[in-house]
Amino acid sequence: MRLVVVGGDAAGMSAAAQARRRRTSDELEIIAFELGSYTSYSACGLPYLVSGEVADEEALVARSPEEHRARGIDVRLRHEVIAIDVDTRTVTARDLDAGRDVIEPFDELVIATGATPFRPPLPGADAQGVHGIQTMADGLALRDHLARHAAAHRRAVVVGCGYVGLEMADAMRTRDLDVTVVDRNPHPMTTLDPDMGKLVHEALRGIGIDVRTETHVEAFETDNDGHVRAVVTDQGSLPADVVVLGLGVRPNADLARNAGIRIGPTGAIATDDHMATSIERVWAAGDCAETYHRLTGRPAYIALGTHANKQGRIVGVNATGGDEIFGGVIGTAITKVCAYEIGRTGLSETEAIALGLDFVHATIESTTRAGYYPGTQPITVKMLAERGSGRVLGAQIIGREGAAKRIDVAATAIWAGLTVHDVVHLDLGYAPPFSSVWDPVLTAARRVVARLEE
Amino acid sequence: MRLVVVGGDAAGMSAAAQARRRRTSDELEIIAFELGSYTSYSACGLPYLVSGEVADEEALVARSPEEHRARGIDVRLRHEVIAIDVDTRTVTARDLDAGRDVIEPFDELVIATGATPFRPPLPGADAQGVHGIQTMADGLALRDHLARHAAAHRRAVVVGCGYVGLEMADAMRTRDLDVTVVDRNPHPMTTLDPDMGKLVHEALRGIGIDVRTETHVEAFETDNDGHVRAVVTDQGSLPADVVVLGLGVRPNADLARNAGIRIGPTGAIATDDHMATSIERVWAAGDCAETYHRLTGRPAYIALGTHANKQGRIVGVNATGGDEIFGGVIGTAITKVCAYEIGRTGLSETEAIALGLDFVHATIESTTRAGYYPGTQPITVKMLAERGSGRVLGAQIIGREGAAKRIDVAATAIWAGLTVHDVVHLDLGYAPPFSSVWDPVLTAARRVVARLEE
Repeated sequence: MRLVVVGGDAAGMSAAAQARRRRTSDELEIIAFELGSYTSYSACGLPYLVSGEVADEEALVARSPEEHRARGIDVRLRHEVIAIDVDTRTVTARDLDAGRDVIEPFDELVIATGATPFRPPLPGADAQGVHGIQTMADGLALRDHLARHAAAHRRAVVVGCGYVGLEMADAMRTRDLDVTVVDRNPHPMTTLDPDMGKLVHEALRGIGIDVRTETHVEAFETDNDGHVRAVVTDQGSLPADVVVLGLGVRPNADLARNAGIRIGPTGAIATDDHMATSIERVWAAGDCAETYHRLTGRPAYIALGTHANKQGRIVGVNATGGDEIFGGVIGTAITKVCAYEIGRTGLSETEAIALGLDFVHATIESTTRAGYYPGTQPITVKMLAERGSGRVLGAQIIGREGAAKRIDVAATAIWAGLTVHDVVHLDLGYAPPFSSVWDPVLTAARRVVARLEE
Repeated sequence: MRLVVVGGDAAGMSAAAQARRRRTSDELEIIAFELGSYTSYSACGLPYLVSGEVADEEALVARSPEEHRARGIDVRLRHEVIAIDVDTRTVTARDLDAGRDVIEPFDELVIATGATPFRPPLPGADAQGVHGIQTMADGLALRDHLARHAAAHRRAVVVGCGYVGLEMADAMRTRDLDVTVVDRNPHPMTTLDPDMGKLVHEALRGIGIDVRTETHVEAFETDNDGHVRAVVTDQGSLPADVVVLGLGVRPNADLARNAGIRIGPTGAIATDDHMATSIERVWAAGDCAETYHRLTGRPAYIALGTHANKQGRIVGVNATGGDEIFGGVIGTAITKVCAYEIGRTGLSETEAIALGLDFVHATIESTTRAGYYPGTQPITVKMLAERGSGRVLGAQIIGREGAAKRIDVAATAIWAGLTVHDVVHLDLGYAPPFSSVWDPVLTAARRVVARLEE
């Protein structure tokens, strides 16, 4: 039996490692093709590599190619899989260094090709100094660029104000660059509701990040060497020594599409609850794969390392005769921008309206510790619940130290189908260094209950 | 209509305030008797008053007597209620300053008399310098004692190594005293299992707290002025300039008992799910009241500010014609000792065994942030689940910064009746500053799932 893995990052190597835990080398041969030179690294850690907070890129590597090989996984670096033939059950991989193609048969195939940062089809978008951040190579390129031009390149423009955009803005503030963020929306972070996005907006301004909202990028102006020198927008030109694209990612689904594997409505590879594709014993996991949103009941595409690891593990089980399902997602995400922490889970107002749900919401302000405890910080919690059933639909949190991970209580409550009435009663941990006596999440639930009763 | 509240701290004044929100002064007269001189203060904050981290005791006061009075609550300080007559529906209160008794009738009565630190019936237990910590007066007395004798009193002995004991040990370490903790058990914190208690033990030793386990206190030795000078144990005598009792608290239930109100098996005032006592329209809330443990199905006594606030609010609703239940407790508790954070929820092994449950458990080590992220700290998570059903029974956490509040995920999961299989799938917040890509709680759940399948 032979398992072939396409893509040697989080999802692919989780699958390979899990399969190896279940099957010896005599029972199962495992080959993993990786386009780049690293395996199993934390792509989510790249902003901290760029900021310099993580000094050594090897620290981002959870397991090196050598470690995987020592466990009997035949890792082939710098190999680009250029074709999958689902009839002959083979893949064709190009050895980038040797410049030749190899064809390898498979019994089980795991597609874990990841995603690519969206590069807008605008003049100059491919100029030097315009960076997307998705792979280790991307991160190293930007870090080295910044190091090389440390004296001269002081002005950074980040295009797009989602998670990656904000994390990269933070990274470049940490490197003491002047940072401008450009976004076409009225507020940063459209995964939050506008009222919460407004708080993020104010927070970013407070930490010296110049946020240009409702601003559309029209081109990237370059100098004679082909290096970016300004971001041209409908609100004027912004001088830029370096540009980072934070416009989201697109699933690398072409390989699968070309092989006749079904692509879902989100543009990612369609999967069932076992992470199986439309072709028998061909699996997909991670940033190339579509998943299921438990609250919308619809396919969802959320590229996130935590899902990639879970899905990879499940594929490793199922590709070796096991039977595990991926439970889907509810859109939980957290991030840190300088001293601010932001979290969200479930449905935003916008999403709840789109689903035609009848809901109420409330927003409260509290503190991360008892009000009198040293280091206490403000926290704002918004919660949504369905009218009638009372079930929690979503929550959003903005605060400082100790704020973001509190979203997990709401995420667990939503997963379990709890109502806001249930949440009010939860026996959560309380001590002055960690919470006000009414946990902020419970206070938000109380307020929503009151709204439901109005 | 008249509502009388006995006890002006968290539970009592939450009840009074909630009642006032629902009824105007014309509709409802509210009288609150308080033995001491403060209302609505955070007893949980007293260790930080003693340590000096909270400089001003007024900071612990959530709402002063004046503020309550401004809302139409007749707060009578330094009034000790000495009798309740449930037939004539009156209370007798002694005005401690005027030295006379007043009798006040009630329609609704809220008993919120709190608890008293257990003082062992040993020679010298009432000596000067032997402090219990439960009321603001206790906290101020100890703080002032330490300040007065700052130069001379350098050796503190804490008797009992539960939450309060540890918090007080921490407080006195913060004041740079030499701290010895004496406990008769093999490990600190018997609300944790011994294996986790052992980790606490090691942590305490590491921060310079001398922990004497399996040591029984036999007496408190005093000098000629009647001031404590040593704690005599079966393992020898420990010199002590100041002693803090951390042996738990006993509910102040005598007033209710003497009135013929039913006392439960825990020694606290028996209540139903509405926090009603055995006498109609007489309610109990907070540290004097018994509650219900959702996992054992039995009455429980857990004196904790967060329960007191919730119960008080519910009593305030029910005493004014509303209908709200208190959902019970599952034994969640967290604390901080110097750099260490400790949390627990649900059942320990000991408790699960006592209930005759068939269960498995697993313990994992992980980090509070991504392993490469600056400031990442170790965290140990133990989880218990029932064999067969797979439902989560309990969890315990020990770690450093960012560890304790993670217990809330387990607490919410237990509350909702989730299984460890459910928990493995939870969509929790992930970003490198906040978690490893597999959240430690999920990793623990995975390990328990593996045990269930063995």
